[in-house]
Amino acid sequence: MEVGKKISAQSFPMNEGDGPYSYVKNSTMQREGANKTKDSINEVIAESLEIESFSASNSFTIADLGCSTGPNTFDAVQNILEAVELKFQKFQSRDISVPEFKVYFNDHVDNDFNTLFKSIPLNKSYFVAGVPGSFFGRLFPKASVHFVHSSYSLHWLSMVPTQLLDKSSSAWNKGRISYTNATKEVLEAYSAQFTKDMGSFLNTRAVEVVPGGLMALILLASEDENLPPKPTITVEVLVESCLMDMVKMGILSEAEVDSFNIPIYRTSRKEMELLIQKNQYFGIEKIEIMEFSLPVSEVFSNSIRCILEGVITKHFGSDVMDELFNRFTKKFEMARNSGFKADDMLVVLKRKLTC
Amino acid sequence: MEVGKKISAQSFPMNEGDGPYSYVKNSTMQREGANKTKDSINEVIAESLEIESFSASNSFTIADLGCSTGPNTFDAVQNILEAVELKFQKFQSRDISVPEFKVYFNDHVDNDFNTLFKSIPLNKSYFVAGVPGSFFGRLFPKASVHFVHSSYSLHWLSMVPTQLLDKSSSAWNKGRISYTNATKEVLEAYSAQFTKDMGSFLNTRAVEVVPGGLMALILLASEDENLPPKPTITVEVLVESCLMDMVKMGILSEAEVDSFNIPIYRTSRKEMELLIQKNQYFGIEKIEIMEFSLPVSEVFSNSIRCILEGVITKHFGSDVMDELFNRFTKKFEMARNSGFKADDMLVVLKRKLTC
Repeated sequence: MEVGKKISAQSFPMNEGDGPYSYVKNSTMQREGANKTKDSINEVIAESLEIESFSASNSFTIADLGCSTGPNTFDAVQNILEAVELKFQKFQSRDISVPEFKVYFNDHVDNDFNTLFKSIPLNKSYFVAGVPGSFFGRLFPKASVHFVHSSYSLHWLSMVPTQLLDKSSSAWNKGRISYTNATKEVLEAYSAQFTKDMGSFLNTRAVEVVPGGLMALILLASEDENLPPKPTITVEVLVESCLMDMVKMGILSEAEVDSFNIPIYRTSRKEMELLIQKNQYFGIEKIEIMEFSLPVSEVFSNSIRCILEGVITKHFGSDVMDELFNRFTKKFEMARNSGFKADDMLVVLKRKLTC
Repeated sequence: MEVGKKISAQSFPMNEGDGPYSYVKNSTMQREGANKTKDSINEVIAESLEIESFSASNSFTIADLGCSTGPNTFDAVQNILEAVELKFQKFQSRDISVPEFKVYFNDHVDNDFNTLFKSIPLNKSYFVAGVPGSFFGRLFPKASVHFVHSSYSLHWLSMVPTQLLDKSSSAWNKGRISYTNATKEVLEAYSAQFTKDMGSFLNTRAVEVVPGGLMALILLASEDENLPPKPTITVEVLVESCLMDMVKMGILSEAEVDSFNIPIYRTSRKEMELLIQKNQYFGIEKIEIMEFSLPVSEVFSNSIRCILEGVITKHFGSDVMDELFNRFTKKFEMARNSGFKADDMLVVLKRKLTC
């Protein structure tokens, strides 16, 4: 049984608790992303969810993968639940009654589930379960989930591609912390890791999602279809620039930056379509690229800090954070009107009935 | 839907984390209790579990209610899983295959689920979900659990009966912290609360457990069938005696002790049988009273400390703990050979197929 298999995915948890740089307090951007996708998700539920084939089960199961500590996960789940409920209500005349709902909140085992559980809305109309573990491995029994949701998690790779840290490799990523503006080999290493990770994700979900069930995935993406994509200014590029400034000032060593890479990959529509086709178990209901509407610089900077603090402090220690993000805020302020890019992708997939 | 209903059960969590007085480090007594019941539980699974009626489901679901932070919950669950697996293997010739297993670990929302999740055995062969909330309310969808296990939780009342704190009531429990040696009215108030709580527990589980499914409940109990039971020396009596000594020494005020009651009730076999019959949804497979074999005094004292520290410090503050448990260890050392009683009850129930 695959259940006990140890998945070697690294965890990059959002900041825990409810302090000033916590995810709970700095996730308004992700909420906005979720709001943008709400109508599209509702539309697919209304048109494509095959509730007749689910009516034998006692309950309808939603899983939010990479839920972090809230509150966005609760809004997303509530939205899905209401859209599904509406669909069931329409079918009530055909002897299909509205089921009970169960929601699995999933994230890595070092996610702060205590905070998550304490912030579950009191007026919820579903049963709650927290599921610790990497979503690149099996999390649920066979054919037991009706709707999978995952918001701003799948652009995180399970690990930094090992070649990037190998000085003898052509993908040795000296002076850079991402694939943007890096060599072709670095981009290929990132893309290969994403391909592998999405393969694991789709294969495991294919087992767990009931035939006819849906998956709505929201992730950072690139609007550009070129491979390699044209250089743009991304969050990673700005963080890299801040770190290199700190090297010049002697605050950090060059070697420290050379050995650091952010395991985030922004796939393209074309690449995502190819991966889904290759997997074969899911049909594409919808793929949309959406431009991110940027908040004021301080809010943006705090949002990014709460997302990246874990992965950055693990490598550089926590002392660099204030300096780094003061610089980041200023650089972002300048970049936001001159080439800074932040796009999201919404992918809605349906588990095929046969295969 | 009952899902969102706020259950007003108070929570008395075991000590969290893994410090010297943590539940993780001081739960060997509960393990021993679980070991004693292992054979009895296995026997009922082998003889009475109706696996033919479950074979349509993709998975077999076990729920441990009041799991705390481990490690006993993992042993108990593993034992049940292996016994169920064995039974399925025996039926394999009849086209029934061994299912995947899912385990729900449940406890109050302020239980330390982070510690629990981090200590899940790596070689587990089941899917894990943590379920926060009171087991006196609904936790799972209709007919979705095949085996319920609950160890050393059900003797905790959902609250101290309110009359005990009302000076004008005949159940005002002056100078006492439990019903032992107290007035008939106090005992009746405890018993009425237990009756109400077990009623809620059995009614909600009746909805959630599949017909033919089993429940194994282990709880503190009284061997004595008299109502009121004959006076015995229990943990509560020793704690009461320590607290009264501390009143005499001026460390605590009398009013502080008068307003404190431990919400633990030790039911009898007769009382439990009546409650189950009244509920009607479950048949009794087994009820056993087992004498507790007591460990050395310091181990026992630490075990009790980690169980009661939450409820005691909430009322008296944490400063009293060391003094209180130094006294407790000494009193227990004297009492263990002269009338100290600690009995457990194992109840195994089967959800009736009809009703």
